[in-house]
Amino acid sequence: MEEIKENCGLAGIYRNESAPKILYFSLFSLQHRGQESAGIMVSDGREILTHRGMGLVSEVFNGSNLENLKGDFGIGHVRYSTTGSSNVKNVQPFYIEYQGKTYGIAHNGNLVNSYRLKASLEKRGAIFQTTMDSEIILHLLVRSPGKNIKEKIAYTLKKLKGAFSLLFFTENGIIAARDSHGWRPLSVGKINNSYVIASETCAFDLIGAKYIKDVQPGEMLLFDRKGMESFFWAEGSIKKYCIFEFIYFARPDSRIFETSVYSTRKRLGEKLADEFPFDGDIVLPIPDSGNLAAIGFSQKRNIPLEMGIIKNHYIGRTFIQPYQKIRDVDVKIKLNPVRSIIENKNIIVIEDSIVRGTTCKNRVSALRQAGAKKIYMGVSCPPIISPCYYGIDFPSKKELIASNKSTEEIRKFLGLDGLYYLSLEGMLSSMLISKDVFCTSCFTGKYPVKPEKCFGKYRLGKCALKDI
Amino acid sequence: MEEIKENCGLAGIYRNESAPKILYFSLFSLQHRGQESAGIMVSDGREILTHRGMGLVSEVFNGSNLENLKGDFGIGHVRYSTTGSSNVKNVQPFYIEYQGKTYGIAHNGNLVNSYRLKASLEKRGAIFQTTMDSEIILHLLVRSPGKNIKEKIAYTLKKLKGAFSLLFFTENGIIAARDSHGWRPLSVGKINNSYVIASETCAFDLIGAKYIKDVQPGEMLLFDRKGMESFFWAEGSIKKYCIFEFIYFARPDSRIFETSVYSTRKRLGEKLADEFPFDGDIVLPIPDSGNLAAIGFSQKRNIPLEMGIIKNHYIGRTFIQPYQKIRDVDVKIKLNPVRSIIENKNIIVIEDSIVRGTTCKNRVSALRQAGAKKIYMGVSCPPIISPCYYGIDFPSKKELIASNKSTEEIRKFLGLDGLYYLSLEGMLSSMLISKDVFCTSCFTGKYPVKPEKCFGKYRLGKCALKDI
Amino acid sequence: MEEIKENCGLAGIYRNESAPKILYFSLFSLQHRGQESAGIMVSDGREILTHRGMGLVSEVFNGSNLENLKGDFGIGHVRYSTTGSSNVKNVQPFYIEYQGKTYGIAHNGNLVNSYRLKASLEKRGAIFQTTMDSEIILHLLVRSPGKNIKEKIAYTLKKLKGAFSLLFFTENGIIAARDSHGWRPLSVGKINNSYVIASETCAFDLIGAKYIKDVQPGEMLLFDRKGMESFFWAEGSIKKYCIFEFIYFARPDSRIFETSVYSTRKRLGEKLADEFPFDGDIVLPIPDSGNLAAIGFSQKRNIPLEMGIIKNHYIGRTFIQPYQKIRDVDVKIKLNPVRSIIENKNIIVIEDSIVRGTTCKNRVSALRQAGAKKIYMGVSCPPIISPCYYGIDFPSKKELIASNKSTEEIRKFLGLDGLYYLSLEGMLSSMLISKDVFCTSCFTGKYPVKPEKCFGKYRLGKCALKDI
Amino acid sequence: MEEIKENCGLAGIYRNESAPKILYFSLFSLQHRGQESAGIMVSDGREILTHRGMGLVSEVFNGSNLENLKGDFGIGHVRYSTTGSSNVKNVQPFYIEYQGKTYGIAHNGNLVNSYRLKASLEKRGAIFQTTMDSEIILHLLVRSPGKNIKEKIAYTLKKLKGAFSLLFFTENGIIAARDSHGWRPLSVGKINNSYVIASETCAFDLIGAKYIKDVQPGEMLLFDRKGMESFFWAEGSIKKYCIFEFIYFARPDSRIFETSVYSTRKRLGEKLADEFPFDGDIVLPIPDSGNLAAIGFSQKRNIPLEMGIIKNHYIGRTFIQPYQKIRDVDVKIKLNPVRSIIENKNIIVIEDSIVRGTTCKNRVSALRQAGAKKIYMGVSCPPIISPCYYGIDFPSKKELIASNKSTEEIRKFLGLDGLYYLSLEGMLSSMLISKDVFCTSCFTGKYPVKPEKCFGKYRLGKCALKDI
Repeated sequence: MEEIKENCGLAGIYRNESAPKILYFSLFSLQHRGQESAGIMVSDGREILTHRGMGLVSEVFNGSNLENLKGDFGIGHVRYSTTGSSNVKNVQPFYIEYQGKTYGIAHNGNLVNSYRLKASLEKRGAIFQTTMDSEIILHLLVRSPGKNIKEKIAYTLKKLKGAFSLLFFTENGIIAARDSHGWRPLSVGKINNSYVIASETCAFDLIGAKYIKDVQPGEMLLFDRKGMESFFWAEGSIKKYCIFEFIYFARPDSRIFETSVYSTRKRLGEKLADEFPFDGDIVLPIPDSGNLAAIGFSQKRNIPLEMGIIKNHYIGRTFIQPYQKIRDVDVKIKLNPVRSIIENKNIIVIEDSIVRGTTCKNRVSALRQAGAKKIYMGVSCPPIISPCYYGIDFPSKKELIASNKSTEEIRKFLGLDGLYYLSLEGMLSSMLISKDVFCTSCFTGKYPVKPEKCFGKYRLGKCALKDI
Repeated sequence: MEEIKENCGLAGIYRNESAPKILYFSLFSLQHRGQESAGIMVSDGREILTHRGMGLVSEVFNGSNLENLKGDFGIGHVRYSTTGSSNVKNVQPFYIEYQGKTYGIAHNGNLVNSYRLKASLEKRGAIFQTTMDSEIILHLLVRSPGKNIKEKIAYTLKKLKGAFSLLFFTENGIIAARDSHGWRPLSVGKINNSYVIASETCAFDLIGAKYIKDVQPGEMLLFDRKGMESFFWAEGSIKKYCIFEFIYFARPDSRIFETSVYSTRKRLGEKLADEFPFDGDIVLPIPDSGNLAAIGFSQKRNIPLEMGIIKNHYIGRTFIQPYQKIRDVDVKIKLNPVRSIIENKNIIVIEDSIVRGTTCKNRVSALRQAGAKKIYMGVSCPPIISPCYYGIDFPSKKELIASNKSTEEIRKFLGLDGLYYLSLEGMLSSMLISKDVFCTSCFTGKYPVKPEKCFGKYRLGKCALKDI
Repeated sequence: MEEIKENCGLAGIYRNESAPKILYFSLFSLQHRGQESAGIMVSDGREILTHRGMGLVSEVFNGSNLENLKGDFGIGHVRYSTTGSSNVKNVQPFYIEYQGKTYGIAHNGNLVNSYRLKASLEKRGAIFQTTMDSEIILHLLVRSPGKNIKEKIAYTLKKLKGAFSLLFFTENGIIAARDSHGWRPLSVGKINNSYVIASETCAFDLIGAKYIKDVQPGEMLLFDRKGMESFFWAEGSIKKYCIFEFIYFARPDSRIFETSVYSTRKRLGEKLADEFPFDGDIVLPIPDSGNLAAIGFSQKRNIPLEMGIIKNHYIGRTFIQPYQKIRDVDVKIKLNPVRSIIENKNIIVIEDSIVRGTTCKNRVSALRQAGAKKIYMGVSCPPIISPCYYGIDFPSKKELIASNKSTEEIRKFLGLDGLYYLSLEGMLSSMLISKDVFCTSCFTGKYPVKPEKCFGKYRLGKCALKDI
Repeated sequence: MEEIKENCGLAGIYRNESAPKILYFSLFSLQHRGQESAGIMVSDGREILTHRGMGLVSEVFNGSNLENLKGDFGIGHVRYSTTGSSNVKNVQPFYIEYQGKTYGIAHNGNLVNSYRLKASLEKRGAIFQTTMDSEIILHLLVRSPGKNIKEKIAYTLKKLKGAFSLLFFTENGIIAARDSHGWRPLSVGKINNSYVIASETCAFDLIGAKYIKDVQPGEMLLFDRKGMESFFWAEGSIKKYCIFEFIYFARPDSRIFETSVYSTRKRLGEKLADEFPFDGDIVLPIPDSGNLAAIGFSQKRNIPLEMGIIKNHYIGRTFIQPYQKIRDVDVKIKLNPVRSIIENKNIIVIEDSIVRGTTCKNRVSALRQAGAKKIYMGVSCPPIISPCYYGIDFPSKKELIASNKSTEEIRKFLGLDGLYYLSLEGMLSSMLISKDVFCTSCFTGKYPVKPEKCFGKYRLGKCALKDI
């Protein structure tokens, strides 16, 4: 599908002499969750060292700054990239020094009551220097009553509404926590006697860690000298796992929400195959996002799979379109259809999702130019009709094509001979876990936790400030 | 397979007001043929402008230097990357000014008589400033008799032994030429009334050009005000197309040697399926190089394909391994096996080729860790036993695993339960064109054109010079 | 003298369509006051734009970011450089967004009660993200009672102890203020109908502005739509101008504290000539810091001046001493004595001041090597025996040579034949304004405003945090 | 005076284990002779290592590449900067590999028969890749008859017309040579048992070397295992030392042509004082170029010297003038007059030379704005009326103000109350060595060696080539 961005990836480690290295590798594995900035914060109990910067993990870290990071516990973060508003102030882990102590935080998700929290804190004298939820959470934390960090964090978390998988850093250890609905994934593993935490288990594979458990919705895990302590800060939880993590975001080699992403994605393709009303000569995934659904589809319907669209891996983020004259070059430079495979065929193209539809339209047009006879598209999720307030950076309702057009209108707009979206019921029944645990608000417009009114239009001052 | 490097990619354009842009996009499409350096040389008949640099096309060119390149004809080049010896002097297009005229050249391939040519030129007073064949060819050119550029180039090409696909730049136009065996591909297309030349046709797809013809072995094509003129500079030709272009190098969406790379690669997998002596539960390609052979294999044997090894696309060339302790991190950071797919399965892994075997060994080990029961590997070409003197940068005979070990020894070394290489006959019979037109010297050690003795050990001076 | 660093340089402008340009040029003129970082914050009343970065003004600003800065009023800042602790978080102008409004600040000087202010603010819930006084001041500001910005700032300034020349930025205009002792300079000029503010008047010369007045100790000047309004926020003031600004820091082409720096510096040399007990063949200034005192000295004593030590202007901040073997190269690479001038002469070397003495010792040794017969040194200020708490970054008492050694001991240490420091009385009598208005605490150890006890050792947490 | 540029600075070393370091420091001392590029070429007899780049010595070399340069003999070069045509191909030392041997060269000066040499070499098959004389010289060298390097170099040098101070690098040692007129300086020193060569002796001071002798006009010095051998390759020599080296280029702490630059420059000021027809209150040098003549002038006439124009040392080469509105900012940002010194005074401004006159005009205007009553200017050399063909990059005759205007016209143009140039006779009589040994062609238009006709208009091809 078109590139959309999610909030972040988290990594943590407690008591391992290679802590900075393990965080570095973990962030590498989680790079798909955020390409705007990366950061690591570690300590050996005497000194706290942090390095953060704009760019990919491989750009932010080099031999020399990695060498200087020393410590045996810490947290790391990768942040998503939005066009234009990249701001060096917003890199994470975010930290403050307060009454002689240092507190750090790394956040994945989105609060829906940040405006109110911020306004109320400002009334009590708080001053904010970034636009991140993380800063709000630390402000709450240091003002929280409680005789220890556990109580203070629990008190803080209860004030928050919305999605948050969190890693806290203190001078004594780290704390992992998840909101009571569990929107964003967060898992715990073990490498020798050390604990590691990561947004996705693919990080564990890389660093040679063994998966232990998920941080549960409403749970908080404290890692310090005494080991790992579990504590449920919320008095009950109604699971609302983000189903879109399965459909698009998570790496297929991860297990999230205690389930294989690969298998789930393939089952979505199988289910789509059951429902799909058209026939064709070949199944053609949009690489790489459509690959697994396409495999499931191809096997179920017994139509041969072809990798007939070739991806250029050298494009990267630095591609310049210096002139605007050459038609379709933007699409083709990333994905080029193989004429010899497509020409004169009835093709079934498998996409994982459609957001705005513009990129998709160009791809269909490129397939048409490559000689396709009939082009049928299967989408392995239902139409996305409503924005996400819990951490996925979908465009606004106006820009979501399925929010404004019927499937038939979309088919025409995209220039397809046939278009079929997997049904909501079909999608849910493909899941390997109970279909009741999922948040499907982007497909239904029904939000488990109401966002505050001004959400997304949050403008504080009369003068917009830009740091250029 | 492990990354090996080829010499280069070429792009040319004659008479198009967007010449620099078209060359830029063409080089983008050919980036897989060379990542060390990139360059463009263009002219509008009054001024000649060139920009070249170390790095990827996207790194060498930016808005500002592209803006400054103006012209309606020109040539472009991407060069392969070797570790360590990157040298800014060796970027191409290479050019000289001689008696008031400028000559440029871009070269793909390798001469096998460069030592002798160089020594003979030096005896006649020539001085060399680079280690590139290109410089030798231009030295020959300007000393060639002949009443015009066509005769001079023809005279020059006859002196050359080995592999060369060439683009010449003069102040009046460009000339494309290919050695009489045709080792390296070179194709001509048309975009409106302009001619474009490229190493592979995938460039034509991107820039919206129509394929016209291949430059034939022994042919020379002159592009100037009078249009395109064909001329056979060699008096006969014995085709020796590089079969390894089909197996590994060329992009699957290209047609080279007038044949689809995709279809050829899939047929190699089908043939391998016919010959393969083992059975398994799933077919698992090493992405992306093994993908197409695996599809062919899976369809032919009716064993389900799984994309069960996940590639991290963010690694790039800048990955730092800052410490050496974490086992297998180098392999796993690029390719991670999906446990849920592999565990307790008998898997058939499809590789396109094995060179040194070390990377392959690590991958097998990673699959073993992911729980595979039995691991059988199918390689879609025969054992590589001998180096290439015609432009592919294979390691020396000592380092080629198949040159030193039997298949059974390799199987043991790699830690496999079974290993099968496609037979030479099988490979050749998979080709969509006559099996007589191919150079298979890397599989047979039989070289159609003998390299000069000191080839590969070429050391002129007693003091080695390094520009650091 | 040896390089020591002061806090900063300030620039401001109100209502001029070339505001960013004028700030840029002003900072250029003030570059000698701070080379660590530079920043500009401007507004056109609708948008606030800021650009800040590490490095010299010429490194931080370029054509593209200057182009993007648009506005008709604003403030700018250059910050001093300390070794090692350069921190991107500490660049100024510093700003916050609070209850929908943006406040900015640029500070020159040093508070002596920042620890207490910070602790008290933290008790009331404030969280600090930098180690700058500026952040404390803004925290105080937004919590201040008062019905308008004037009252709020006045309330804030009364809380501050120590040295501060300040520029505030609000969405409606800018405010300049100076502490009631007036340690650091701050002047107001006019360019057409616009007001400009700068730490030193040399900025006015460059931008073509006319000097109007100094911001007076205890005064606050508000620049907004109604023009310039003066207001004395302090109820009385005892002038304590930093005499070291005259001796070393300020540019000789500036007037500070309503007096010419050039003339003052020359008079110091004349007075030194009166007191100096030795005789010599030539007067030799350490360039450029000793130049003006040397001219005064030479004219008064009628001993010829020679510019016999040559400065290498290409050294800059990037000089690498890759090896340590070559003796004295560090000194000589910056200053090289001219043998033909020095050989066999009795020389009187004029230094403006001596801090640690180590650099000075090396210079004396270089002069000795150049063949000097006798070397007498005259220093145009008294011995520095005590640190500064008001904005000059002297080393600690331990490192101040004159704090630990008698003049005779220093003479021996430096390898001189004679050493004479200008007397305190002599220095004060050289001033062109009343000798009662000066702070001379670095020469006397008597501090007009007591620093809080932990000053200079301020360590909040048990863990030191470093952002690398 | 206005900045003009000379060709280069040379450094060499034979047999010293710190060779790269000594070359690095030497180039630092010679930085004023060339700021465009820098390079070092060293060898330990087994390996030859070179590093070259665009920019200042401090930009081209860093800890890591200096660390990699290893060797005990070698040569170094700094090259002048011209606007726009900076070309990475033209960095020096320049080297070639020829018949298994490496030859390097570093050149200071300008040949006047390069066109003919180049044309003749091209006729014999040579191909040129740069526009440097150095390449021509190496081409001649390798084609020279002779049984050893001494004979070959001697043969080569005889072919050259014009100015050349040269350092050759061979695998066995280095050779220093100077043209038979000795236009450019070149000196030999000793550091322990090693020989060092440098364009100016200030390099010796820095590295702690002892001056031995100048390379004489027409002399060639070979440094190899046998030590230093002198050989006069020219059969006679007529000294034509560049007098402008004394007036402007050389560092005042250098001895060139066996004479102190400082003393010479001061004597020029004394002589100017004798001839100067005006009187004034103060003597004001344009810093730093006018300093020494001003000291001589002030002492001779007994008029007090004031350093009343302040130089901003932070400007560097990166200054951006982003807008054009502020009057005179370009001049004032570099040099700011001190009003308190200048106001209501009759001032005598000392310049070392006037080239185009435009910068000078702006400076006079700035002095006028600072309140000067009368402004008289003394120039410590005669009017420059003719270009230099021997290595100084003066503008063309059209742009030389004194070539087109009388002194009275120049005075009016500059806005002066009086202008006086030192007479030719006065200049020559100020020299500390025989006045017959100097080239004064820029003042007289009489050229000791005729430049070839097309000099300076050398355009080979119909198409201009630009490497961007």
